[in-house]
Amino acid sequence: MVIIGGGFGGVKAAARLRNSAADVTLIDKRNFHLFQPLTYQVATGALAPADVAYPLRAIFKSAPNVRVLLAEATGFDLDARQVTLTNTPGVSSSPMSVPYDTLIVAAGSSYSYFGHEEWRKFAWEVKTLESAVAVRSRILRAFERAEMAEDPAARAAEMTFVVVGGGPTGVEMAGQIGELAGDTLRQDFRVIDPRAARVVLVDALDRILQTFPPSLSAKATRSLDRLGVTTMTGQTVVGVDAESVTMRDSAGETQRIVTRTVVWAAGVTASNLGAKLGELSGADVDKAGRVTVERDLTLTGHPEVIVLGDMVRVRGKDGKPVTLPGVAPAAIQQGHYAGTLVRDRLQGRSTHPFHYRDKGNVATIGRGRAVVDLHVLRLSGLPAWLVWLFVHLWYLIGFQNRIVVIVRWSFSFFTHGRGARLIDDITVPPDEASGH
Amino acid sequence: MVIIGGGFGGVKAAARLRNSAADVTLIDKRNFHLFQPLTYQVATGALAPADVAYPLRAIFKSAPNVRVLLAEATGFDLDARQVTLTNTPGVSSSPMSVPYDTLIVAAGSSYSYFGHEEWRKFAWEVKTLESAVAVRSRILRAFERAEMAEDPAARAAEMTFVVVGGGPTGVEMAGQIGELAGDTLRQDFRVIDPRAARVVLVDALDRILQTFPPSLSAKATRSLDRLGVTTMTGQTVVGVDAESVTMRDSAGETQRIVTRTVVWAAGVTASNLGAKLGELSGADVDKAGRVTVERDLTLTGHPEVIVLGDMVRVRGKDGKPVTLPGVAPAAIQQGHYAGTLVRDRLQGRSTHPFHYRDKGNVATIGRGRAVVDLHVLRLSGLPAWLVWLFVHLWYLIGFQNRIVVIVRWSFSFFTHGRGARLIDDITVPPDEASGH
Repeated sequence: MVIIGGGFGGVKAAARLRNSAADVTLIDKRNFHLFQPLTYQVATGALAPADVAYPLRAIFKSAPNVRVLLAEATGFDLDARQVTLTNTPGVSSSPMSVPYDTLIVAAGSSYSYFGHEEWRKFAWEVKTLESAVAVRSRILRAFERAEMAEDPAARAAEMTFVVVGGGPTGVEMAGQIGELAGDTLRQDFRVIDPRAARVVLVDALDRILQTFPPSLSAKATRSLDRLGVTTMTGQTVVGVDAESVTMRDSAGETQRIVTRTVVWAAGVTASNLGAKLGELSGADVDKAGRVTVERDLTLTGHPEVIVLGDMVRVRGKDGKPVTLPGVAPAAIQQGHYAGTLVRDRLQGRSTHPFHYRDKGNVATIGRGRAVVDLHVLRLSGLPAWLVWLFVHLWYLIGFQNRIVVIVRWSFSFFTHGRGARLIDDITVPPDEASGH
Repeated sequence: MVIIGGGFGGVKAAARLRNSAADVTLIDKRNFHLFQPLTYQVATGALAPADVAYPLRAIFKSAPNVRVLLAEATGFDLDARQVTLTNTPGVSSSPMSVPYDTLIVAAGSSYSYFGHEEWRKFAWEVKTLESAVAVRSRILRAFERAEMAEDPAARAAEMTFVVVGGGPTGVEMAGQIGELAGDTLRQDFRVIDPRAARVVLVDALDRILQTFPPSLSAKATRSLDRLGVTTMTGQTVVGVDAESVTMRDSAGETQRIVTRTVVWAAGVTASNLGAKLGELSGADVDKAGRVTVERDLTLTGHPEVIVLGDMVRVRGKDGKPVTLPGVAPAAIQQGHYAGTLVRDRLQGRSTHPFHYRDKGNVATIGRGRAVVDLHVLRLSGLPAWLVWLFVHLWYLIGFQNRIVVIVRWSFSFFTHGRGARLIDDITVPPDEASGH
């Protein structure tokens, strides 16, 4: 069988099939599993890329029935039961096909730019490791440029940071930039005062953290404010270019913020493999590209194809498709379910429909501050932060990563420093590199 | 005063002037100090980039008299006492000048390709952080391609690794690739057996580690052999292309090794700022681009210009220029001397000529294996490795880095794993990035 995607869902499904009778091929275009809930910390230098990424081959090295393939899945032949691969550069020049008896597709999602793909060039996301590293360089470089700028307006533009999207990633990112400016970098410059940086969090809705109760949204807003982050709700972004972000409120008033650094954490679009599966099977595909799957996560008419994670909507008891939260626990539960389904089938057993257990929500705002909604219990401040810390360390793959992350976080907590704030996007062509 | 270069020499000089009456501007084109003796470990995934790099601003944040400037120095006006900067992309579009009363140039060196710049495209070095990360991806990708290759000859080519240069970096790099193939990755693949990889270390001279006594060279060769590394001495590289390395021995016989991965660790060429200073002052410049400086490291006729590190030759008592070893301790001693000289001048005191104290040599070959030559004492095996470990941790800047490196090394030592083996050179243009 074939699993597409080495994220939370795919890895969990493969792990569930470890040492089973199934012959598993796990396909991903990257050679590592990314711990996406902490990737934004790479974007502000709190963690290093290797701390939140773990080689897929290392996860399955003691599972002889799991084979990892570094390739990109681009399409399907559902009748012939084959996945088409376009290999990553250098691996092979011709497209390949991989046959399957059972297929699990867990290809995830990315950010959508509300139909404005041209904004992508100016508003960077922090979902992939590569983009998080790029954002890190961009943020740090903005301070470097501000330090050298002679014109006060140019300096102010460099020191303005806009984060679009008031979900957990946007809130965490804005909080981290606030901390970076107000705390980590405060002694680093001689001309500018990083504490003068302006950090703005923009959301189209009336409050941030919509999936949390309003009281926790209000607490998060206050915590952000203490970190120097201005929260602007009810503001729809209508324009992004190299020099500014333009927003419009419900009354139609527009407002323009001059900035050189925009981080994008709004909108979701499923992997285009979802739409392809919908087209081939006739299953519904929603506007965000999510394909509708049956209650056991299988594709309508194709019980041998399981699709999961934030690229699907799952049919409920009443047959209506439900969008589950696009968070790691949902993907993990579905991956676990998919693995169980395959195991049960191998043993001729039937499986109950998938049932999502919502264990709650957690978002961190800064050093020692977070909000946690466990439904029966709502926490904020330090207790919430400790829950956040524990949950994230618990799920981090790799014991070494856990220790290194504990070390880095302890240092940032006590010294207010960040170890990994490197500007390493210098793309010197090899033949121009010199010793200096 | 101005210091060019945030390497060992420049940072040590600036540190020596911390809280002095001097107003210091430290210029580097990167925002971090790189611990170059361990950069090769990044190239094999043993350490992450952030473990061996430390932000320059963080080093000097509590030194208000030290200002860091992210820019590239490209030339001098010795009469007007100005340094010309070409700023790194995005910082400023027009070149700037920075005036100095005293100038310290510590711009280092890079590898030379024996006059064959075209080899640089195929034979990558591991001296800069960016190139080490690129080599890491190349090595790991070679194994991935081998796993997918169907032709045995293509597979063998992918699994052949050639390291050119038998100095400490070449030896350490070859040993690390041997360990990666024979140990770390041994369970990771299903088609290939990484232990079948061929690792070849090539040197033109008659033995590796020329700066060590012959007995230690022999021990290192035996240790490499045990890691599966074939050492080929007396072989001059005469050709490198995308598919092979060609060598010629003293008898004129040529030999060609088919390989897709070549690491270059041979030849040295000083920063071109050395030649520029030579041209402007009339000081001698040798074939490797090193400018000759006086016994107090000053440029002939320009006592206000100090040049140091592996971009210079220093005049001895007899007036003849001497090439000091291009190692970190030499740069550190010269940086310390330069700082002292400036301090002494500020206080109207005279300074003794620079004197290099050779404390010995150390090179590691693999897990628990190294060679150490302390002149009074020669060590190999585990005792040497412990010395190597201690010396490198001791000099690593940043307490957090030390702890993280200890954690990573402990894990590799006991689990034979490597945490940071990410292939992260995927250059997906932002507008093509997708969620999968």
